[in-house]
Amino acid sequence: MSWSEWLAAEAAAREAAGLTRRLNPRAADDPTVDLAGNDYLGLARHPDVRQAAADAALTWGGGAGASRLVTGTLALHAELEHELADYLGQPSALVLSSGYAANLAVVTALADRTAHVISDAHIHASLVDAARLSRARLTVVPHSEVDAVRTALESGDGDRTLVLAESVYSVLGDAAPLTELAELCASYDALLVVDEAHGLGVHGPGLVTRLGLAGHPHVVVTATLSKSLGSQGGAVLGPPALREHLVNRARPFIFDTALAPASTAAALAALRVLRAQPGLSDLVRDRVRTLADALGVVTPDGAVLSIPMPSPRAAVAAQAAALAEGIRVGCFRPPSVPDGISRLRATASAGIAEADWERAVDVLVTVAKEHQ
Amino acid sequence: MSWSEWLAAEAAAREAAGLTRRLNPRAADDPTVDLAGNDYLGLARHPDVRQAAADAALTWGGGAGASRLVTGTLALHAELEHELADYLGQPSALVLSSGYAANLAVVTALADRTAHVISDAHIHASLVDAARLSRARLTVVPHSEVDAVRTALESGDGDRTLVLAESVYSVLGDAAPLTELAELCASYDALLVVDEAHGLGVHGPGLVTRLGLAGHPHVVVTATLSKSLGSQGGAVLGPPALREHLVNRARPFIFDTALAPASTAAALAALRVLRAQPGLSDLVRDRVRTLADALGVVTPDGAVLSIPMPSPRAAVAAQAAALAEGIRVGCFRPPSVPDGISRLRATASAGIAEADWERAVDVLVTVAKEHQ
Ligand SMILES: Cc1ncc(COP(=O)(O)O)c(C=O)c1O
Ligand SMILES: Cc1ncc(COP(=O)(O)O)c(C=O)c1O
Repeated sequence: MSWSEWLAAEAAAREAAGLTRRLNPRAADDPTVDLAGNDYLGLARHPDVRQAAADAALTWGGGAGASRLVTGTLALHAELEHELADYLGQPSALVLSSGYAANLAVVTALADRTAHVISDAHIHASLVDAARLSRARLTVVPHSEVDAVRTALESGDGDRTLVLAESVYSVLGDAAPLTELAELCASYDALLVVDEAHGLGVHGPGLVTRLGLAGHPHVVVTATLSKSLGSQGGAVLGPPALREHLVNRARPFIFDTALAPASTAAALAALRVLRAQPGLSDLVRDRVRTLADALGVVTPDGAVLSIPMPSPRAAVAAQAAALAEGIRVGCFRPPSVPDGISRLRATASAGIAEADWERAVDVLVTVAKEHQ
Repeated sequence: MSWSEWLAAEAAAREAAGLTRRLNPRAADDPTVDLAGNDYLGLARHPDVRQAAADAALTWGGGAGASRLVTGTLALHAELEHELADYLGQPSALVLSSGYAANLAVVTALADRTAHVISDAHIHASLVDAARLSRARLTVVPHSEVDAVRTALESGDGDRTLVLAESVYSVLGDAAPLTELAELCASYDALLVVDEAHGLGVHGPGLVTRLGLAGHPHVVVTATLSKSLGSQGGAVLGPPALREHLVNRARPFIFDTALAPASTAAALAALRVLRAQPGLSDLVRDRVRTLADALGVVTPDGAVLSIPMPSPRAAVAAQAAALAEGIRVGCFRPPSVPDGISRLRATASAGIAEADWERAVDVLVTVAKEHQ
């Protein structure tokens, strides 16, 4: 089959399954109430964040101009790393160009063919890809089953072992049993990598910190700057020896242009707003509880409520019905869901104005009922 | 060995080999003349680029707030994709968060275990990682040897085959035999993926376009927005069917937050400056020729001159000597070089003021001589 025939066949198969996805550009003044994104605290549009990003672009220029090891490391990066580490109670931080890159970096720099990676069944695509790219022996364990992790650790033959988890899982919004996992890793001399993409901001400095696990010798953290911190980029947090190792060995760090000045400054400004206004984290969790109660579903540990729908098509129809009412929610269909169940996803962002939020709750309750 | 012991052992081995690398943050008002970065046309600091990035941050906020398929696609992304495709003479473009992500996306979305990837020995780490992650059968061929590519194509058993090349290779700065490779790919129904990271801007719209290969049914292009376009981000250019395939299948696109507004706007503004001032591309090539002549080395096809040094330590010492004269050059040592030879790297950026440039040439000639 030629390349063009193959692309056409793939497209036809997607179309037949009702799974074709298209991009819908939005305007800057789009009046829709956004419950689809990951700007959990509304900080992407906070005046301090916008201004800091603009100032950095004017001062530093459009890009960092090089990879971090060449001349791409700006004083701004160092400042962000210092404040991020401080807020999370970690000894050091390294900023990368995305959360995806941060996950690739930490896993591939630590694990190779001689290592063992034990991965929760629900971890994010970036960690799945990271494990694949590392070529480590991979064991996927059932979601959040600590005993399964123990069994996998026992099967180890003394190799270096990484255990991969998220603090709050993206799709179902449930928290990982981090304390148990950290204890288990300590007793088997494994390293627990916790992705705080959906925990940071929603739980202040994140669940690792809240649970007293920051600085634990068997726990390292990855984070994204693109969700609660309203910007772009990622970070790895842990001991200085890990940071130095990544600087020297992590290919997705070494061979990638440094994070742009505006994005670095935006994340830094958002971090400062978050530290000054810890009530933002409480607000987003209050809201997700309100919405869950209204829909009669269990309150998740994260900021995103997942509403199971009977089919991909029902999910799309419900999403369109909400949009007709001015409310944008997400719609997750295979292959973005770990269990094959299509879902509406609604983010209880602290950035939505109170009246809009109340209307959004009403619309979602109606729409969800109509499409079951 | 415990994790901390392993990290310490790795660090000690690096130290002993003289290969430890450290980050050196720079200040915004650093007076050093920068011949180390990849801001080939000086557009990262162009007033239009700074202003466009600042305006976008003020208008749109610090981040795009979601992945492209959720609500992260901004009208700005569509505009940049349209103008990029137009400039390169390609039917469509897709913007990603980095050039690294663009390479991972195109290779992993096209190639899987059933595919065959034929890769030039000098391709960039991001394409190497992309090929690994795809799990395709991989054949690495000697650098720019067309016959070796033919032999590899002949060995194929009718599987979908990708051939990976750069238009201008990053380390040695030599151009690939693109016309021959495209013909070969056409006759074997393979697809040639050309990374224009170091060709775009330095050769106007890039070598693929200059050679009349844009829109060729067997050629697709990847690019970065972080070098000549002075920003951050990456792009894949080719037929709409490829773009649609990436939107639906490329995990590094689907599971990654969209490029930040300021970076998108910066790349767009840089693209417009480049189109209005095609002389920038001529200037950078004039300069690289001047510098090569002064050093008595062959003029590369790219904007970066590579000066082989006798050892990693000599390269570091020469770099320090230039820096003492206010000239920053790059220093590439294993494992960032394909052939194990340490090098100074000097970028003939069009953004350097004429007097600074002339002084930089003098300093480099002296320093290179002293450290051979
Ligand atoms: C759990 C998790 N990790 C990592 C990422 C990737 O982060 P980024 O978008 O900054 O690349 C995401 C989502 O985008 C995520 O949900
Ligand atoms: C040839 C090549 N491709 C891709 C990349 C990655 O691009 P980016 O820095 O935008 O991730 C680079 C350098 O950074 C490169 O030199």
